[in-house]
Formats: sequence, structure tokens, C-alpha cells
Amino acid sequence: MASPLRQLLPRRSVLAAPSARAWSTKRCLLSQRRSYAIAAPDSKDPKLQAIDLSKLQVQKTTTPKERLDNKDLVFGRTFTDHMLSLEWTASNGWMDPRITPYQNLSLDPATCVFHYAFEAFEGMKAYKDKQGNVRLFRPDMNMARLNRSVARIALPTFEGDKVIELIKKFCQLEERFIPSERGYSLYLRPNMIGTQRTLGVGPPGSALLYVIASPVGPYYPTGFKAISLEATKYAVRAWPGGVGNSKLGANYAPCIVPQMQAASRGFQQNLWLFEDVDAETGKVEDFVTEVGTMNLFAAIVNKEGQKELMTAPLDGTILEGVVRDSILQLARERLVPEGWKVSERRFHMRELAEAAREGRMLEVFGSGTAAVVSPVRSIQYNNELVSCGLTEDVEAGQITKRFKDWIEGIQYGDEAHPWSVKI
Amino acid sequence: MASPLRQLLPRRSVLAAPSARAWSTKRCLLSQRRSYAIAAPDSKDPKLQAIDLSKLQVQKTTTPKERLDNKDLVFGRTFTDHMLSLEWTASNGWMDPRITPYQNLSLDPATCVFHYAFEAFEGMKAYKDKQGNVRLFRPDMNMARLNRSVARIALPTFEGDKVIELIKKFCQLEERFIPSERGYSLYLRPNMIGTQRTLGVGPPGSALLYVIASPVGPYYPTGFKAISLEATKYAVRAWPGGVGNSKLGANYAPCIVPQMQAASRGFQQNLWLFEDVDAETGKVEDFVTEVGTMNLFAAIVNKEGQKELMTAPLDGTILEGVVRDSILQLARERLVPEGWKVSERRFHMRELAEAAREGRMLEVFGSGTAAVVSPVRSIQYNNELVSCGLTEDVEAGQITKRFKDWIEGIQYGDEAHPWSVKI
Repeated sequence: MASPLRQLLPRRSVLAAPSARAWSTKRCLLSQRRSYAIAAPDSKDPKLQAIDLSKLQVQKTTTPKERLDNKDLVFGRTFTDHMLSLEWTASNGWMDPRITPYQNLSLDPATCVFHYAFEAFEGMKAYKDKQGNVRLFRPDMNMARLNRSVARIALPTFEGDKVIELIKKFCQLEERFIPSERGYSLYLRPNMIGTQRTLGVGPPGSALLYVIASPVGPYYPTGFKAISLEATKYAVRAWPGGVGNSKLGANYAPCIVPQMQAASRGFQQNLWLFEDVDAETGKVEDFVTEVGTMNLFAAIVNKEGQKELMTAPLDGTILEGVVRDSILQLARERLVPEGWKVSERRFHMRELAEAAREGRMLEVFGSGTAAVVSPVRSIQYNNELVSCGLTEDVEAGQITKRFKDWIEGIQYGDEAHPWSVKI
Repeated sequence: MASPLRQLLPRRSVLAAPSARAWSTKRCLLSQRRSYAIAAPDSKDPKLQAIDLSKLQVQKTTTPKERLDNKDLVFGRTFTDHMLSLEWTASNGWMDPRITPYQNLSLDPATCVFHYAFEAFEGMKAYKDKQGNVRLFRPDMNMARLNRSVARIALPTFEGDKVIELIKKFCQLEERFIPSERGYSLYLRPNMIGTQRTLGVGPPGSALLYVIASPVGPYYPTGFKAISLEATKYAVRAWPGGVGNSKLGANYAPCIVPQMQAASRGFQQNLWLFEDVDAETGKVEDFVTEVGTMNLFAAIVNKEGQKELMTAPLDGTILEGVVRDSILQLARERLVPEGWKVSERRFHMRELAEAAREGRMLEVFGSGTAAVVSPVRSIQYNNELVSCGLTEDVEAGQITKRFKDWIEGIQYGDEAHPWSVKI
């Protein structure tokens, strides 16, 4: 229970009760800033042991698994021979890293991960290029985000560059599980759990960071398939001052029942709305946040007649997607010279519905590690099915396809780019 | 992945965008209704196996533990010899219940409880009365709440009365761990976790319901000790349309860092505020919700000169406490005839601060299973320390003490009452 306090800055300034309208504006502003900034990681605490790469212990399996045929791969169902583990205690810091055969975790039933959701994860992939090299895609982004996530729930932070080195060693050991076929990859799941075995509600005195790996196929084996979304506000995924921007287990279980509801009405995913006042107009709008498993992009012709690619800003209510960030950077480099406007800004469903009605809707797509980009055919909003610019016989728009090609080109090493890290 | 859909009704009606003011009022109304109502439990699905009490398997330990001295008991740190377990699968339903020696859970590292927070729990106690009988306190309330919690995250529901029968058998087996001294009890922790071992985000195809037990002492071994709270709004615990009324692990880990922050400033707990518009005045106020581990009651003399005991309503953002409900019922039976007004209603910090400044503050206390009632000395709110009616030499007010006596009298069987269930 001796985990050091981590400072949360800036703290929201405390205001006297304003009028309803002033409050509305204030709320808008609040939801556009980060609630938390996290101070230096524990790994810098000189009293605690940092991760020591030279101490890595590797215990190889004596019963290697059969590799499945590529066509039989299902996301996150089969795993490689080994796992990477790092234990932490509040009194000692990080213990020696270990690669062991993939095995069950044996935990006391009072362990805090089972009761209070002390858990945060990442999703990343290892790709094999045409020369047979194994590559990671922006792993520094995943480690930085995992550090922000774990700090938010009083789990220990760590030196991301060291864990990347360990992940590289782990991937080398599991190389035979990384398919060389385009579209296939090895999905990596870093996960941290609190392992303290008491029921007192407080910061965990011990934790386990582990990485498992699952060979996966292309998200759409038969090529793109556009999905339909149900815009949802009867349930709310995230809110200002909450934890929607952290990749915590806590954000996932509560979304499943609404997802099942949407599925029962024929929609593949929820599009999570956040009802708030538009700072410019003073009107209440249903702002677009994210899909829960993906960030969302919309390409429209705006009222000024300019092509605009937009996605919600990092206001604390959406996940800070690695692919989202990559799309924004590529769009600024490659689409702006073609005359596009690229916006990280709040936008609402009424704006999308108007664009669709007025023939200004170009494309909508989700972004995430699983599918890179995922084209959207339509969004059910109130009683309106908002069409997202695809004709019936088309599964993906041009911009969606270009982003897929650009990013996969970098991921698979066809295009030399600093984002692709060769192991 | 074949878990049947559960209906969520009523769905929030969809309104056209109103003006900011209308919205504010609407938000107030929305936050006063439950977002979800849950349909019939899975246990009624005729295709699935229900819990069969006659199939209970009991495997007794061969290495019984030493009992700690009462004075050495720490909440939730030591456990009894055994645990109660029930496994569920989507294809079969509930398997045979088992009581086994207390033992670690062995789970695949891909198990969904570690990644997506499929977990919900309860807290309840077994008491020993003067005749040596073991008693539970309103266990039906805990089972009903656990069913609501698990249904909210797509875990299987169950027949609460059957699990109560199993808990009774479990308590009988562990009787030697239930201290007979007043203030001591056996804390029971029913917990349900999703056990499906794939990384796909969907309803778990298997689950485990288990109960462990920890002998505990009085929350304040030296008698009442009043605590001080930090009223918190830079972090927000719950939101309308969220899961703040369910006893999910997901609600706990995110509260720890703010709790550590409050502790660093000398406050034992956070008092979670929810900023919203007051439907009557149209002004923005910081409404009082709960403490995160307790519900909150305030006793004031209201502006009409009447003594009023108030607590926040069940609007979806607070936990539906068993002790909270018991206090409300007892207050209506026993305080109303003395001239008190008893209110489940929204109230805000400005109202409490005004009562304190104007000499109308009587008492504030938290309610929960751990301490029954927990007196509050002060609440730090903005730049004001709101004093809660206790003089420096006094740790608990009269009303707080009376509730403690009334409820403990029922829990320990001194007063015959239908809430106390003899095993």
C-alpha cells in the first residue's frame, strides 16, 4: 500500500456557480482540455529498482504448439508458445523480466484485479516485411499510452523503451508465428494488472505487466466490408473528468450490453455520442466521440465548399488512437497539399446529417489497430439513417483506401518510414 | 459468445435539439431516472441449467488455518478455510455448486476479466448473536443488486434465493471464524468474473461466481472516529447513462488516484460531486452524490425550521446501498413521528454550506456495510471547510449514534426484525 503518490496537474480551477448559460460554455471548454497530466514515472524513483534488461530470463517451451493455417486464424483466440512477464512490488520496484512458456496465472481470489478493475492494456502488432524482417509500428506510442493508463489507476509506470526492447526479444522468439502473407500479423497484447491480494480499496502494492501474442489475419479477409453504426446516447461511454481517454478494462465491459442491443437492430457497433452545448451556437448537440473499439473520421465538403477531414479532439472522452494520430499526420502531409482541410475538432451528428442530406458527405471511416481503417456505410441517428457516401456496390471510399494503403505500406516496410521499427 | 441478449428498457426518448436552458432542465430530469431496467434473468431460460442446490459438493480442507486474535484482524486481509464457487457457461448454464478449500484461481492470461473488467461484487456480513446463532442482514438486497450489476455487463444472472442458501451453508462451515464479540463479524465477498479466454470484445461465454470470507473487526476499534471529506469535481465518478449505480470493479480503480490526492491533503475520502443545473432555480450547482465506499446522509434544520434528514436519490449515479435503504426505512418509521422530514432528493454543496454558516447543520454521516454509519466532521469544498455540526471533543452526533444502535441491534439479533436472517 506504499505506492508513491502521483501528482495530477493541472487541477480544474474552482469557479463560483455561474449562470446556466455560462456553465454551458464552461462545460464545453472543460471537455476540450485534458483532465489529468501525469508526473514522472515511478521508474525514476531512485529507491525503486528499474527494469534491468541484462537480467532477462528466458525459459523456452518444451511443447511447441502447432501453427494454425492462416485461414483458420481468429482474432485473439490462439496464442504463441511464450509470454513476457514483469512483476512489480511497491517496496522493490521492477523484478527481473522473464519470458516463459505461455501459462495460466495463478492468483488468490482476493486479488484486486478481480474486484476493483486494476487493469490497463494495449493493442499493437508485429509485421513481417518482404525481406523477412519483423517490424513494429510506432511502439513508443503504445508504451506512452500504457504509462498514462496505468498511472490513472495507481498502477506502476515503467520505462517504455526498455519494454520495447523486451517485446522485440519476445517477437524474435515467436517469429515462426508471424505470417509473411500481406494483411497478416502477430497481435501483441501488453496488459498490466494489480496483484495485491487484499480487499482494502487502495493503490495496489504489487502488479504484473505481461505480454501475450496472437497470430491474426486481415480484419476483412474478403476485402473491405463497410459497417453500419448505431449512434448511441441512452448509454454514455465517457465524460469530462472520467477515464475515457485511458485504455482501461473499466471502459470495455460497460459497453457490451449496448453493443448487443445495437447488434439486435442490425448495427455492428455503437457510435458513442456526448450531449453537450455547442460553444458557438449555444445549442445542445449530440457530439460524435468514438466507436469504443475505433476512433471515427468523417470526410465532407464543408459549407465553405472545401473538402474537410475531421475527427474528434483529444478532450479526455476519446481514446488517443495510434492509427488516429498517424492518419492525422499523413493527412496533413499528403492531403492538405491537395486542398483538403484537416481538423481535430468537435463535430456533431446534425452536421453529418446535414452534409448527407445536402450531398456534401464524402466518406466516414473508423481507425484502429485491428483493421487500420474500417469504412462506414451508414449511421442510425434518432429516426434517420445517415448515409455515409458509399453507393450500394461500393464497400470503401477513395480516401479510406488511400489511408489503408499508406499505413499498411509503412507497417509492412514497403515504404521506408521512421514509424516502422525493424527488430 | 452465445449469451442471450438482455433487453434494456426504457430507452431514453430521443428529443430534437432544445435550447440550452431546456436542455439543462432535461438533463436534470434525465439524471433523476434510471437509465436501465433489466429483463428476466438467464436462470429462467429453460434451455439453460439452473443452480441445483442438491448437487452441492463440499470438499473440506485438510489444513485448517489458525484463527487470528480479534485484535489482529484487518479488513479483507485474512480469509477463512474455504470458498464457494459456481461456474457458468453460455451453452450449459450453471454447473454444480462447490465448496472447496480456499485456493488460487488458475486463469489463462487472455481471460476477459483481466482485459475488459468483466467483474461485479457484493459486500455483506454474517453476525453471531448472543445465543450463538449466525445471522445475515438483508441478503436478498445484495443478491438483487448483484443481479442488476452483472446484467449490466453481460454476465449471467442467477436465482438469488438459491445463492443465499449456499452462502448459509458456507457460513455454517466457517462458523469458527465468526467472532462472537459485538462489532465483529464475517465479511462475505460474493464476486462474479468473466472467464472466457479470448481477446474478442463481446459478452463472456463463461463466468465464475465465487464467495470468499474474511473475519473483520469493528470499523472503529476505539469507538467512532469522525472523518473529513474532500468534495471532488476535478474527477467525476459517475454520469447519467453510465454505470455508477452498479457495483462493478470498473467504478473503483478510477477513484484511487483522487483518493490518494485527497489523502495527501489530509482528507480520508472524496465526496463525489456532480455539477448540474438545479431544476428549480436554473442555477448550476455541485450536487452531492456519494463517497465511493459509502452513501452520504445530511441532517439539517431546513429553511422552514424543520429537521430534515436527506440523501441523494437513486438517479443512476449513486450506489443503491443496503444500509442506505435501511436507514431511510428506519428514519421514516422512527424519526418522522418525532417531527423529522426524511428526503431522498438532490441537494448541493451550497445548501450544506449555507446550513453550516447559519447554524442549521446538525450531522453528516456516511452509510455502508463496513462501518454501518461513519460520522463526518467536515467537508472541504472550494476554499471553504464546511463544518458538519460536531464540536471538537465529539466524534459522532446523536442521530448517527441512534442509527448505529438501531441497525446493529437488528444485525446482531438483539431486536427481532425480518431484516435479520437466522442461518
